[in-house]
Amino acid sequence: VDAIRLVHWGLGAMGAGMVRLVQEKQGLRSVGAVARTPSKHGRDLGEVAGLKTRLGVSVAPALRQALPPDGADLVLLATASFTRDVAPEIIEAASAGLNVITIAEEMAFPWRSQPELARTIDAAAREHGVTVLGTGINPGFVLDTLIVALTGACERVDSIRAARINDLSPFGPTVLRTQGVGTTPEEFARGLDEGTIAGHVGFPESMAMIARALGWHLAEIREDKEPIIANVARETPHVKVAPGMVAGCRQVGYGYSQDGRLLIKLEHPQQVQPEAEGVETGDYIWIEGRPPVNLTIKPEIPGGIGTIAVAVNVIPLVVAHPPGLIHMTDLPLPRSIPAPAGVAASGRQEGAV
Amino acid sequence: VDAIRLVHWGLGAMGAGMVRLVQEKQGLRSVGAVARTPSKHGRDLGEVAGLKTRLGVSVAPALRQALPPDGADLVLLATASFTRDVAPEIIEAASAGLNVITIAEEMAFPWRSQPELARTIDAAAREHGVTVLGTGINPGFVLDTLIVALTGACERVDSIRAARINDLSPFGPTVLRTQGVGTTPEEFARGLDEGTIAGHVGFPESMAMIARALGWHLAEIREDKEPIIANVARETPHVKVAPGMVAGCRQVGYGYSQDGRLLIKLEHPQQVQPEAEGVETGDYIWIEGRPPVNLTIKPEIPGGIGTIAVAVNVIPLVVAHPPGLIHMTDLPLPRSIPAPAGVAASGRQEGAV
Repeated sequence: VDAIRLVHWGLGAMGAGMVRLVQEKQGLRSVGAVARTPSKHGRDLGEVAGLKTRLGVSVAPALRQALPPDGADLVLLATASFTRDVAPEIIEAASAGLNVITIAEEMAFPWRSQPELARTIDAAAREHGVTVLGTGINPGFVLDTLIVALTGACERVDSIRAARINDLSPFGPTVLRTQGVGTTPEEFARGLDEGTIAGHVGFPESMAMIARALGWHLAEIREDKEPIIANVARETPHVKVAPGMVAGCRQVGYGYSQDGRLLIKLEHPQQVQPEAEGVETGDYIWIEGRPPVNLTIKPEIPGGIGTIAVAVNVIPLVVAHPPGLIHMTDLPLPRSIPAPAGVAASGRQEGAV
Repeated sequence: VDAIRLVHWGLGAMGAGMVRLVQEKQGLRSVGAVARTPSKHGRDLGEVAGLKTRLGVSVAPALRQALPPDGADLVLLATASFTRDVAPEIIEAASAGLNVITIAEEMAFPWRSQPELARTIDAAAREHGVTVLGTGINPGFVLDTLIVALTGACERVDSIRAARINDLSPFGPTVLRTQGVGTTPEEFARGLDEGTIAGHVGFPESMAMIARALGWHLAEIREDKEPIIANVARETPHVKVAPGMVAGCRQVGYGYSQDGRLLIKLEHPQQVQPEAEGVETGDYIWIEGRPPVNLTIKPEIPGGIGTIAVAVNVIPLVVAHPPGLIHMTDLPLPRSIPAPAGVAASGRQEGAV
């Protein structure tokens, strides 16, 4: 079987991580790369992605310059979070006959917030015979795909509550700023108003994906974002948070039925040093139903690695799927792609059972 | 969309539970029933399944008498655990143009233990354009499907360990006998030798399914079964276990690579009153890899309800799948089918998001 030929579009922390992971996976080959940052242009993709080996792929400023003469199969798109920002890139790739996997959070289920763009993308994908998927760890896995899969063991589902409690301490200034870490409560409120503090992008998408899979109608989706005020001093290499200041953002999403009942509640408090005040990180899912299901993953699946893993692992499933704009719940079960034959690191070997 | 027309074959505890659940689900309709027990023949399926309402379906002694004039779409087969026992029934159903979902444990992945029969079933399914799936809570979900899905969030998987710790106290004499509950250690050893104590059926199937999805080669699969000796008295309505006697069966499965490394370890200690000696029930999955994943479901997803739920919930996915003998990891994510429109019990309503 020929390897799936990949173009990497976007070489930030997530994009570069995908480049590195692709080299460890069977049946995948990096054949092109696109970056916006001029200083990356013309350099070898391996070097730009932090690998010790060159990949023989030169980073280009645009997709048409990145495509090798014999073409490619799929674009891994890691440039932005919102559908309106990635839609032109997706349509350009689809028009070039390339399947697309993007980690743009809104693209996990763009039909809810951007139905017009979703229709346009879906039409372009079908016209050119390619498949487009938005995914990542969240949205894309923990608070939607995993929940849907669990309901498969339920005779009846009455309501769903889930929480992803994570630690922002490893993250740099950009992430800390978009979550309001280190601000005063007043600055936090203003940042939310002005949009400089974004919180988590993806709750409406996760809820819509769950609802679609379960045949539920969500008449209303609401989100609350509030500051997590530190009671004790917290500190990371990038920020100091004094008591009374903001250690993070507690985001809660609610999905209601037509008659006002709460069907889905998602919580995602993101903060630095949660352990300083006894908060344990983890992914939690509670399904009310028959039977009830009470799931815990401790610690939480890390966001960066998880997003990179999910996006790369579904590549063969996306390539094999019929054309159109799809969602994680359309695909077969995700699963980790093995290392190339002969690579013993994880003990994987080629061949059937 | 027309309802999927179902024939229920096997009306024991599991089969009858499926009949009841089907009546709560959108898009499913019971149109036929087959039972071996003569006392059930000619009676209404609703009555036999313990429903308060009649279903207008008469229980027949054989499939050809159970099929309505306008045919059916799928058989829910709940008659036996082993491939050799259900293969003739599956082939009869496939030859009649019916898709098949069976809860026969070995059928979750029959290629490992019965490759000849698997080939025959696969050929019959393809010839008649139908799909055949074996599933249930375990094998079929907790110790295979759920594990595979979790690896989708892993950059690398080195090895997998999982445990399903459950409580046999709710079960009746048949289950207790096949697990050796209430025997002396000597009787237990003899029961294992003679095959009257079976333990759990499904470890090789779960391991083979995981390995196939992850591209691993398992050179050897081994199973140990040993008695769980009670240290304190345990008692249920059906059995008394004195200290020193057998409270259950501890089953452990091992899957090794070609070079002898343990890639998969599955544990399934089944006993009455585990809490009497401080054992907490639950489903546990530990993935060694990047990242490691440490999952807990407490209490465990109950076996009976879970098997009924998984088998019924995948009906639309099986009907939509291309023909052949398939496995859970071939299907899209399982998910709970909603109640019929207008049924408010679980707040579900028809329509898209």
